[in-house]
Amino acid sequence: MKILESKNVIEEGDPVLIRFDDEVTYLIEVNSSRKFGIHRGQPIELKDLIGKSYGDSLDFGRAKAILLEPTLEDFIMKARRESGIIYPKDAAMILMKLGIRSGSRVIEIGTGSGALTLALAAQVAPEGKVYTYDRREDFIELAKGNLKKAKLLSYVEFNQRAGHEPFHETEVDAIVSDVPEPWNEVELIKASLKNGRRIAALNPTYNQIEKMAEALEKSGFAMIEAMEVLVRGILARPGKTRPEQRMVSHTEFLLFAVKPAF
Amino acid sequence: MKILESKNVIEEGDPVLIRFDDEVTYLIEVNSSRKFGIHRGQPIELKDLIGKSYGDSLDFGRAKAILLEPTLEDFIMKARRESGIIYPKDAAMILMKLGIRSGSRVIEIGTGSGALTLALAAQVAPEGKVYTYDRREDFIELAKGNLKKAKLLSYVEFNQRAGHEPFHETEVDAIVSDVPEPWNEVELIKASLKNGRRIAALNPTYNQIEKMAEALEKSGFAMIEAMEVLVRGILARPGKTRPEQRMVSHTEFLLFAVKPAF
Amino acid sequence: MKILESKNVIEEGDPVLIRFDDEVTYLIEVNSSRKFGIHRGQPIELKDLIGKSYGDSLDFGRAKAILLEPTLEDFIMKARRESGIIYPKDAAMILMKLGIRSGSRVIEIGTGSGALTLALAAQVAPEGKVYTYDRREDFIELAKGNLKKAKLLSYVEFNQRAGHEPFHETEVDAIVSDVPEPWNEVELIKASLKNGRRIAALNPTYNQIEKMAEALEKSGFAMIEAMEVLVRGILARPGKTRPEQRMVSHTEFLLFAVKPAF
Amino acid sequence: MKILESKNVIEEGDPVLIRFDDEVTYLIEVNSSRKFGIHRGQPIELKDLIGKSYGDSLDFGRAKAILLEPTLEDFIMKARRESGIIYPKDAAMILMKLGIRSGSRVIEIGTGSGALTLALAAQVAPEGKVYTYDRREDFIELAKGNLKKAKLLSYVEFNQRAGHEPFHETEVDAIVSDVPEPWNEVELIKASLKNGRRIAALNPTYNQIEKMAEALEKSGFAMIEAMEVLVRGILARPGKTRPEQRMVSHTEFLLFAVKPAF
Repeated sequence: MKILESKNVIEEGDPVLIRFDDEVTYLIEVNSSRKFGIHRGQPIELKDLIGKSYGDSLDFGRAKAILLEPTLEDFIMKARRESGIIYPKDAAMILMKLGIRSGSRVIEIGTGSGALTLALAAQVAPEGKVYTYDRREDFIELAKGNLKKAKLLSYVEFNQRAGHEPFHETEVDAIVSDVPEPWNEVELIKASLKNGRRIAALNPTYNQIEKMAEALEKSGFAMIEAMEVLVRGILARPGKTRPEQRMVSHTEFLLFAVKPAF
Repeated sequence: MKILESKNVIEEGDPVLIRFDDEVTYLIEVNSSRKFGIHRGQPIELKDLIGKSYGDSLDFGRAKAILLEPTLEDFIMKARRESGIIYPKDAAMILMKLGIRSGSRVIEIGTGSGALTLALAAQVAPEGKVYTYDRREDFIELAKGNLKKAKLLSYVEFNQRAGHEPFHETEVDAIVSDVPEPWNEVELIKASLKNGRRIAALNPTYNQIEKMAEALEKSGFAMIEAMEVLVRGILARPGKTRPEQRMVSHTEFLLFAVKPAF
Repeated sequence: MKILESKNVIEEGDPVLIRFDDEVTYLIEVNSSRKFGIHRGQPIELKDLIGKSYGDSLDFGRAKAILLEPTLEDFIMKARRESGIIYPKDAAMILMKLGIRSGSRVIEIGTGSGALTLALAAQVAPEGKVYTYDRREDFIELAKGNLKKAKLLSYVEFNQRAGHEPFHETEVDAIVSDVPEPWNEVELIKASLKNGRRIAALNPTYNQIEKMAEALEKSGFAMIEAMEVLVRGILARPGKTRPEQRMVSHTEFLLFAVKPAF
Repeated sequence: MKILESKNVIEEGDPVLIRFDDEVTYLIEVNSSRKFGIHRGQPIELKDLIGKSYGDSLDFGRAKAILLEPTLEDFIMKARRESGIIYPKDAAMILMKLGIRSGSRVIEIGTGSGALTLALAAQVAPEGKVYTYDRREDFIELAKGNLKKAKLLSYVEFNQRAGHEPFHETEVDAIVSDVPEPWNEVELIKASLKNGRRIAALNPTYNQIEKMAEALEKSGFAMIEAMEVLVRGILARPGKTRPEQRMVSHTEFLLFAVKPAF
């Protein structure tokens, strides 16, 4: 059963990334009763997209566009948000370092807007599950909307939770924390994580990763490792290739640790 | 069916990452008839590991170690190789940018030692498939060994192929190229890739990505984008947190492009 | 004789960097007959600055400002320009790598707006000299204005020069090239540079430094070395210190080589 | 009077950087009564270097070498040291950001091995002065040796000083701190620094720059700014140009602030 099978022909309800030739992109959902007001020229009748295929081009006269099936990266970057962004570069490294894969059971502490939840859900599908916790009901609703658009809602269980409450699950394969004070969660993380498995914490300041590293070490976690991931764009053009002149130079520090058997 | 389900109790044939407290790690396969000569002290009788659990510690007197279930990252870093290494940071970004997921069908050009094949296979499992091509029979054999150790062999089809021969598959969800002259493959890539989907090329020099970007553009590919991914370690320690003093400052440039409908 | 002696009391004709508390800065020259229209509130009567001292604060009601004696960095960043910028980070590294010091005689190929000329002139003063060449008369005039504001004009000789013409000076201590095709100048550089001394070339693309490195090697230059200098800002704040979120990720590649005796 | 005039013919007592074609370099002082045991082949009779010129080549049969007049960078990198190294990239940025130039009077807190003192002395020469302070007599002696080799001793005044003692000088043009707890020096720095001028502090950890930034802000300093300078090598070679694979990823954070009039 290939639940996530990709497809070429666009149907009612499908997500489409419309990318104009000036690099502006829009993520829309095909709804035959709606129009979409683009940034240049006439609105698009969304019903006109039905029957087209991903990869097809549209010609609006002055503007041209290509229709794409959104990737996980697109859903992350286009997620509606009221909290900080998670960058695909960081999400990708977390999936790699935690060894999350199809079938994994993962706890996420701090749902926020659900951007990282998207990455976790896409990775554990179709048989695994993400158990995500947030103290704010409005964030959970926002995240549900973002997961629904990406058709990943069924791989996630949402939980509202006050700080210090234990997680419902035990023996999970990985835990990701995206909260400002992760050190308060260390003992609960230890109670729910499978022996030999990893926890990741994302935080923007060195003060936070320092405090979290100390808390993890005191609690007996092993292989504590912190890093930052940087992506620099390269303009590859005949005879004049060079790095891009500006880049995002900081998002989050990433901290990883392994839970040994106690 | 959770083919990739993780487990805690170690059995005959299982892979184990033994990590000593001086950060030296070994990736072994439990074989009850073999010993393993560690770097400090007496050899380990591998049969003694059977019945232990991932996360358990071993005490060798002067040295202590923890037993871990290897992650994809461990299999990549410990892969036997006779060609260049692929770094987990680059593999993770490729999986993200190409939108590869459980169930995807992916062509890899240039099997090499199979390190990137490992990442692709783990991502498409359990229902997807990696079709990997290399002109050298010895590389294919080497890669098969690395895939087998990671129990990912069944998700990969190996093909020996002279340059310029078309690929057997069409309508694949993504193509990854790790060969020195990828520009020779552009038309064959176009013939096998689904419309709207992405190709990634990894190459170490500016010259190669420039030439490949030019070839892709001439062939009509869209959204051509190049980048480098850098990971800087952070030493998070109470009262004296700082970046690490040395880092890997270059591995491969990554080049991505989308195939539009033609 | 300390020609460059710094001073505290501001007089007619002195340069002043006015820095507002919102980090906006203006570089002005005190001219008692002129006003200066600042970005918030009433214009400043510049004669009111006379008799104040560097380091003094001004209170404009809603805005506050501090009066500073401009440094070389300020003159570089505030230079009027019609060509590309040179960054202080790159100028500083060039001065270091070339071993330029008070008393040095230096040729600059490509005056441009004179930003790098400023750095060279400040370094060789008071007894050395910068011999700068540009093919465009308008650039030379622009650069003279920038040097004059920084009171460094007397350390520079300006020359208009068509490509391929030899330089007037020989046995100079260092040569800096900031032109798009420096490889055309290699033999002339060799004719004017003292044995054992260094040439620096600044160029934005890898193609240019590759071609220049090749030309230098063919011409017999030694110790060819290329690099890029990156500066990342750090926000150091109690309890929440982190790198800045955006940075300049590329300006120029720097290429250095030594001229051996032939 | 060009005290620092460079010269071509090598004489008794002159410093020479011998650079072998395998990139190994030695910094020696010509002493006609001594031999120098090089790493390959016969020792060099140093008296044989007298009368040669900087830029000349030596042929030792299997090895070839070039004779160079050492630059400031060479003296810094070859300084004998018992404390941490200062990197030329950081020294260059400090000179630029502090606006230090020929004729400047500068206080250095923490002489250490004198590597940064070398950079300061070369910059203020011939009319300026560096006033350097260290609590350890042995460091001062070590630094004097390094300054003497670079013929920069006459531009430096050395002071042994216990922590918390005021500096002898006032109205200096710049102050550089290279001590582990610079926040203890803030009020003394304020007492000695000219209004409108800058202090730089170098420290390796986030914690130190955070604490120093806080102390400077509390004391009324303005324009507090922190950064790190990174240098990445580029291998510029025909047809295969790429960044170097390893780099120094951390040395010191640099913190700068301006002293306003109080």
